[in-house]
Amino acid sequence: MNDPKLKNREKSVWFSVLFDFHRTKTLKRLLVSMLLVGAYAFVVDYIESEMLHIDFRPPSYVYSMLGIVLGILLVFRTNTAYDRWWEGRKLLSKLGYNWKNVALKLNAFLPANDQENRKYFAAMIANHSYSLKESLRNGVKKHELVEAEPGMLDNLDKIYHVPNYFAAGICNRFNELYKRGVITDMQFLELSKHIDDASEVVSSCERIHTSPIPFSYAIHLKKFLFAFVLILPFGFIHDLGYWCILIVMLIFYAMVGLDVIGEEIEDPFGQDENDLPFDAICKSLKKSVNEILIQPTVNEFVKA
Amino acid sequence: MNDPKLKNREKSVWFSVLFDFHRTKTLKRLLVSMLLVGAYAFVVDYIESEMLHIDFRPPSYVYSMLGIVLGILLVFRTNTAYDRWWEGRKLLSKLGYNWKNVALKLNAFLPANDQENRKYFAAMIANHSYSLKESLRNGVKKHELVEAEPGMLDNLDKIYHVPNYFAAGICNRFNELYKRGVITDMQFLELSKHIDDASEVVSSCERIHTSPIPFSYAIHLKKFLFAFVLILPFGFIHDLGYWCILIVMLIFYAMVGLDVIGEEIEDPFGQDENDLPFDAICKSLKKSVNEILIQPTVNEFVKA
Amino acid sequence: MNDPKLKNREKSVWFSVLFDFHRTKTLKRLLVSMLLVGAYAFVVDYIESEMLHIDFRPPSYVYSMLGIVLGILLVFRTNTAYDRWWEGRKLLSKLGYNWKNVALKLNAFLPANDQENRKYFAAMIANHSYSLKESLRNGVKKHELVEAEPGMLDNLDKIYHVPNYFAAGICNRFNELYKRGVITDMQFLELSKHIDDASEVVSSCERIHTSPIPFSYAIHLKKFLFAFVLILPFGFIHDLGYWCILIVMLIFYAMVGLDVIGEEIEDPFGQDENDLPFDAICKSLKKSVNEILIQPTVNEFVKA
Amino acid sequence: MNDPKLKNREKSVWFSVLFDFHRTKTLKRLLVSMLLVGAYAFVVDYIESEMLHIDFRPPSYVYSMLGIVLGILLVFRTNTAYDRWWEGRKLLSKLGYNWKNVALKLNAFLPANDQENRKYFAAMIANHSYSLKESLRNGVKKHELVEAEPGMLDNLDKIYHVPNYFAAGICNRFNELYKRGVITDMQFLELSKHIDDASEVVSSCERIHTSPIPFSYAIHLKKFLFAFVLILPFGFIHDLGYWCILIVMLIFYAMVGLDVIGEEIEDPFGQDENDLPFDAICKSLKKSVNEILIQPTVNEFVKA
Amino acid sequence: MNDPKLKNREKSVWFSVLFDFHRTKTLKRLLVSMLLVGAYAFVVDYIESEMLHIDFRPPSYVYSMLGIVLGILLVFRTNTAYDRWWEGRKLLSKLGYNWKNVALKLNAFLPANDQENRKYFAAMIANHSYSLKESLRNGVKKHELVEAEPGMLDNLDKIYHVPNYFAAGICNRFNELYKRGVITDMQFLELSKHIDDASEVVSSCERIHTSPIPFSYAIHLKKFLFAFVLILPFGFIHDLGYWCILIVMLIFYAMVGLDVIGEEIEDPFGQDENDLPFDAICKSLKKSVNEILIQPTVNEFVKA
Repeated sequence: MNDPKLKNREKSVWFSVLFDFHRTKTLKRLLVSMLLVGAYAFVVDYIESEMLHIDFRPPSYVYSMLGIVLGILLVFRTNTAYDRWWEGRKLLSKLGYNWKNVALKLNAFLPANDQENRKYFAAMIANHSYSLKESLRNGVKKHELVEAEPGMLDNLDKIYHVPNYFAAGICNRFNELYKRGVITDMQFLELSKHIDDASEVVSSCERIHTSPIPFSYAIHLKKFLFAFVLILPFGFIHDLGYWCILIVMLIFYAMVGLDVIGEEIEDPFGQDENDLPFDAICKSLKKSVNEILIQPTVNEFVKA
Repeated sequence: MNDPKLKNREKSVWFSVLFDFHRTKTLKRLLVSMLLVGAYAFVVDYIESEMLHIDFRPPSYVYSMLGIVLGILLVFRTNTAYDRWWEGRKLLSKLGYNWKNVALKLNAFLPANDQENRKYFAAMIANHSYSLKESLRNGVKKHELVEAEPGMLDNLDKIYHVPNYFAAGICNRFNELYKRGVITDMQFLELSKHIDDASEVVSSCERIHTSPIPFSYAIHLKKFLFAFVLILPFGFIHDLGYWCILIVMLIFYAMVGLDVIGEEIEDPFGQDENDLPFDAICKSLKKSVNEILIQPTVNEFVKA
Repeated sequence: MNDPKLKNREKSVWFSVLFDFHRTKTLKRLLVSMLLVGAYAFVVDYIESEMLHIDFRPPSYVYSMLGIVLGILLVFRTNTAYDRWWEGRKLLSKLGYNWKNVALKLNAFLPANDQENRKYFAAMIANHSYSLKESLRNGVKKHELVEAEPGMLDNLDKIYHVPNYFAAGICNRFNELYKRGVITDMQFLELSKHIDDASEVVSSCERIHTSPIPFSYAIHLKKFLFAFVLILPFGFIHDLGYWCILIVMLIFYAMVGLDVIGEEIEDPFGQDENDLPFDAICKSLKKSVNEILIQPTVNEFVKA
Repeated sequence: MNDPKLKNREKSVWFSVLFDFHRTKTLKRLLVSMLLVGAYAFVVDYIESEMLHIDFRPPSYVYSMLGIVLGILLVFRTNTAYDRWWEGRKLLSKLGYNWKNVALKLNAFLPANDQENRKYFAAMIANHSYSLKESLRNGVKKHELVEAEPGMLDNLDKIYHVPNYFAAGICNRFNELYKRGVITDMQFLELSKHIDDASEVVSSCERIHTSPIPFSYAIHLKKFLFAFVLILPFGFIHDLGYWCILIVMLIFYAMVGLDVIGEEIEDPFGQDENDLPFDAICKSLKKSVNEILIQPTVNEFVKA
Repeated sequence: MNDPKLKNREKSVWFSVLFDFHRTKTLKRLLVSMLLVGAYAFVVDYIESEMLHIDFRPPSYVYSMLGIVLGILLVFRTNTAYDRWWEGRKLLSKLGYNWKNVALKLNAFLPANDQENRKYFAAMIANHSYSLKESLRNGVKKHELVEAEPGMLDNLDKIYHVPNYFAAGICNRFNELYKRGVITDMQFLELSKHIDDASEVVSSCERIHTSPIPFSYAIHLKKFLFAFVLILPFGFIHDLGYWCILIVMLIFYAMVGLDVIGEEIEDPFGQDENDLPFDAICKSLKKSVNEILIQPTVNEFVKA
């Protein structure tokens, strides 16, 4: 689902995966910055060795100490972002099994020939997932939604919060069924808690989407990293000469790459390469719910 | 919501974000301390190199070892603070979806024309959130509250715990509706658990607000850091001369900055730049709950 | 609540908090040990430089490596202790909102004039919290308890587990009310789960109180630290002379301080400076519950 | 269950476990890569010392710093994978006790002579576990399943999601029993929540199976590691001569081994040596459920 | 409960705890290995300095880097083990409060004079805990169990899973009481969930007991450590001479000790010094449950 490359664990040479050159996104994004840093290192190098000979050569442990502390900070920052990515993955998983459970229960609770309600719920559940996906990407894609009732999608752009709109529709229909005696109070209780869980998923996804890591934390890390890169060439010149440009660029790439990856994965609901397969999850959920609630073939099996 | 800058990930040069000079709050707060530290380094430097030549030059691994251990401590301290910030964010999210669920259920349970109860609950839910916000900021802002019943806000300054006061009002109204048979026992059960969750949110927010990191932990960290800075210049003088002032100030800034950020984000309910958007969350909740419970346009959609 | 000093974040100079000399508890506790270590360093120094010249001078990376590994171990150990402290804080918070919820519900369920039951529950809830506090401090303070029924406190010293005794009283009273039809089965269900939560809090607090970190872990850490301090002076003598005593004492203080803080905060229910404000929490809970259940003024507000 | 070797803690010599040479899977998988790295080190060595004498000798702290940061990254990566492995283990445990609880309850709820339903549920529960196991290994093993009803397994290859198919069967049968009055509504409520838990387990296992660590994270780590190994020999040549090949291979093995182990354990549902004993768990569950629901001997004990 | 020594925090000298020589279990277990390592260091030393002078002297940063990475790995490994130990402690705590809650509820639900059922449940709850303890130690101790019904313990050796056997007995008795109308459906619901929780505790304990850390992780760590110790003496000889033996043994002890402690505490249900006080917990539970359900003196208090 995410990447078949990573699963190819039988390759006899460990580092063969590195030579898929089309997969160097992080590299591309950092290219300009890396060239600037390389140019800076060259200038420092040139001035220092050819023109004036400043007495600025911090002892090695300054680099060692600052570099390791910085590295630990970056590892923690990346892991914080990874935690959000993983929580996002868990939430999408919960979205799926929560609505599948609703479908399983409705299939058991509703009469087999109540096609109206079955179709209604199948449509609304799919609508809820699709609209959540687009609301996290700041929009609505009307063509992904199903008109569960006539006119339902007409005024969609006036709705403040579209996923809640569909949840409210499902909630009201549950209540109607309960009042009309189609479902008992135990069944109603069972169904209600799934609405709560769906709301929790929606809110939690929005929380991850709207709350990046605290600004002062992120900016301090960037400043620290920047200052570290600024003083880096001074320590290498006397040992390495112009080779120092290479080493400075390598260290820059290794460390800033972690920061960039942290930014990429901390909001996992977009459409980047590392983002979660939200479209596929919605599609699969829609298919499953339709199979359970509507398609006769499946019902035959299940009821057999 | 938090900061559009951080989201601007398409910038071609990674470090361009650093040159927004108006965003250097941490720097400003540490300026005086940094100047003092710089002055101290200068004095040590001057005395050492110009006047008396003390034989105090700790070997480099002392700095390396202490610096790395200190760095790890600081990273952990910052992450502990971040955990509280993130838990605070989760709690506000829970506050929101919890009350929205109550509104969804009440909308389904109450008769469409029971405007009295609908208005009452919409007002009380908003009151609960706003009063929680201000109680975490040590006060009450009466103009943010709605008078759900005549005289309700008159004696507010005599109430020991204002959010509990509104929760009690909601709880009693649920019980009345139950006793009068407006809602069934299953519906009552459904509603009751949301009161519990609201109480949990209130208590947890108060816990984060009133419990900073254990004092001896925080103070030991500060002492360690201070002692480290005190012996720092002695290791650089012979290598760096007066350049050492710069390096000492950089290390001081990098490390103490982490401590300061930890303090800033461990209580996330204030009004600092890094604090959570509590006002916006309250406003959005009030709007949503009003739409669900009162406004006819939304009800039309939902009931359509 | 914990310490106003820590909250004073507006101070212009970061390290001003360090000069509150009356707050150096950790320092005091370690004073004798530090002096012994200093004396040891002096003796090693003296023998080495004045009398015999042993060829024992481990290379610097031995210190660097051992020191950093030791530091990481100590940071983890401190954080393990901090986790218990924080879990303890959460439990006390849960104790509070759990009983407050019970009070809110009883206020809604019981007739307004049923002063007998209201007083009984208000007293029993307070008794439960206070007796938990003292049972974690290995005792009972009879004067903190209220006699909810005549003779209830007479044989308290024969009771094996006092908080359970009060919980059993509350549990039985709930069941009586249910059997007499004062509360419905839904209400009974609502109340019962709070008894479970209270039991969980009691057991979890006892777990934290009686289970320090595994002995072999703690003792290995101490041995490692001790061995490290023993070989520490040999690495400094040739570089530092008698200044080495100062550095050895500093490193000893920085590292052992972490171990001592870990021990201090891992059992947070005592009466040390870093322990949780259990007395204040009990007092506040008693006040809140009384306001909700008994005092007419509050009932007036709530029922208004 | 996993490995008796690891449990043999009474061995007098700690490292005796290392000499079970048949257990060197990681070594084997990395052999080719290690030889390539060794050859590379030899070439660098030869060119450098025999032919041209490049002035490329990065100072030692570059290696130290990069190596430690890399090590920390690898440790975190391994622990992330371990967390998935452990979560997978918890899920299988939950699968087991969830279905055992269903069996215990059905045994209590169903009449002792209702062999039809008892057999049906015993078969379906076993089917659910076995089909989950194979669906995580991308297939179905029909011979492991029991035909709970005639024709049930005939069209298995047309079913989109086999574990859901069996869960739906169980769910429907619960509902039938409830409608026919065999079980009360409380009993039905009790049973329903176990269906939810089973769905959660299925979805969570699928989540772990289909979501490896974000690609950019994994690939950055590999690139960093690769670059580090590339520059590694240059630092050793002058100190070590051809011995450097050995050290380079050792460092490569130690670090890449962590990456490889991370990949091995992050999807724990396969049939590798480190994977979870899923087959044994299914077998044990089937046996337990059969004993509880069907076998007269056990029922005799339990009913005695 | 665990160790009074650790609690003795008032001792004026921090390291006095180290001189309880009877408490050096880890030391004893590692003695043979340490002597072997010492002998190895001596042999390397002797050959190197007296006979042939190999040019194998890895630069210091190799040791520093490998040592720190190894140390971090070991710290993580120990903490993983500690997490299991602590989870085990939580589970035993949950076992206790779960059954105590059952006892509290049964005491409220059952008529005061229903000695038969009271004795039955008190016996079965104790049996469940004791049999869980022994099943985690691979056996049954019949003399610890009570014969709640005649013949109940006769065929114990034919039972596949003894704790489940007792849980099934309790579960069936609950159901009988419910069918006979002794307890209402709400009370039955309350009791049922405790059976689920008991099953969860049993399964979770078994999970911890049967799943050590993944084999490839553990073995890689051991290999890494072993290789590190093998090359360790070469770095010291020139600096330290025969003193190097001491340092090698110290580093070996410090690092391997962490691995050994990890193995000791990752399965906390045995009878080692570091294992959990399972016997005491069972005894205390039995006593509490008996007091609540049977002994007249306690009932008098509680019913007073």
